[in-house]
Amino acid sequence: MGLFSKDIKTLNDLFVHTLKDIYYAENQIVKALPDMIEKVTDSGLKQGFQAHLGETKNHIARLEQVFKLHGVEIEGVDCPAIDGILEEADDVAGDVDDKTVLDAALIAAAQAVEHYEMTRYGTLVAWAKQLGRPDCASLLEQNLKEEKAADMKLTGLAERGINAKAA
Amino acid sequence: MGLFSKDIKTLNDLFVHTLKDIYYAENQIVKALPDMIEKVTDSGLKQGFQAHLGETKNHIARLEQVFKLHGVEIEGVDCPAIDGILEEADDVAGDVDDKTVLDAALIAAAQAVEHYEMTRYGTLVAWAKQLGRPDCASLLEQNLKEEKAADMKLTGLAERGINAKAA
Repeated sequence: MGLFSKDIKTLNDLFVHTLKDIYYAENQIVKALPDMIEKVTDSGLKQGFQAHLGETKNHIARLEQVFKLHGVEIEGVDCPAIDGILEEADDVAGDVDDKTVLDAALIAAAQAVEHYEMTRYGTLVAWAKQLGRPDCASLLEQNLKEEKAADMKLTGLAERGINAKAA
Repeated sequence: MGLFSKDIKTLNDLFVHTLKDIYYAENQIVKALPDMIEKVTDSGLKQGFQAHLGETKNHIARLEQVFKLHGVEIEGVDCPAIDGILEEADDVAGDVDDKTVLDAALIAAAQAVEHYEMTRYGTLVAWAKQLGRPDCASLLEQNLKEEKAADMKLTGLAERGINAKAA
């Protein structure tokens, strides 16, 4: 996107731009998760992250279906938001000296990622419906539901043991 | 935070670090909102952003109470996450050529901000309780509730008119 051109002229342009944004974000998350899995100590949390890595790959596949259904080229655009969220996750994790505290920090970092995805998918579902694309909305809704479920699972892991171990 | 020192040794250190993170974030949001208010066309959305600017100032005041109750210095720390989210909001808004589409884009941007705050406050409430600080948890919970309400209000504005106008 150029500084002097205004490339987003319609809601459809905005929808496609945001689709490319979350496509880039999901791909960055696939790259970041293995490092988080390696850092985690709690076995339940490690399994949770591993399962979510598999889900994230499915989300990318669903996004590629949405691109195809909507007739646009599959590509990402720079997403400073997810870059910042992942940079912060990495910074904080690098600053933690205790394994149980690190687990609590990694849950918080993962939930920040989930919340970013939830807001983008929520918006994309609403726009897809508005644009008369219930087929795209349905695929995006599946991703949204899985992000919400992953977030709730992380809350459960934090509140049913990991925060207490860290304290 | 230094590259070679691991400054976060306890859950309390992590709590204080995250408190400083959201304190920085809320202050950046106070700086960003007037520009968003200026760009908005829809009068209901403009009023919503104006009301949220007032709420955000209250959130900062509540955070300052939490710092005092917990006996730590009131200060922010760099938060690449909110910087990235606000940078992306600004980039996208600068790329939109139509006022009604810009309103839809600004709602999406504001909801990404709300979701970041929701995840941080959710985490902080859980950690404050774990650390035996129900007084801090209660203040943070008030901020969390207002962020959730602001997010739902934005969803309502989008789905009851602004997305349709943009389409």
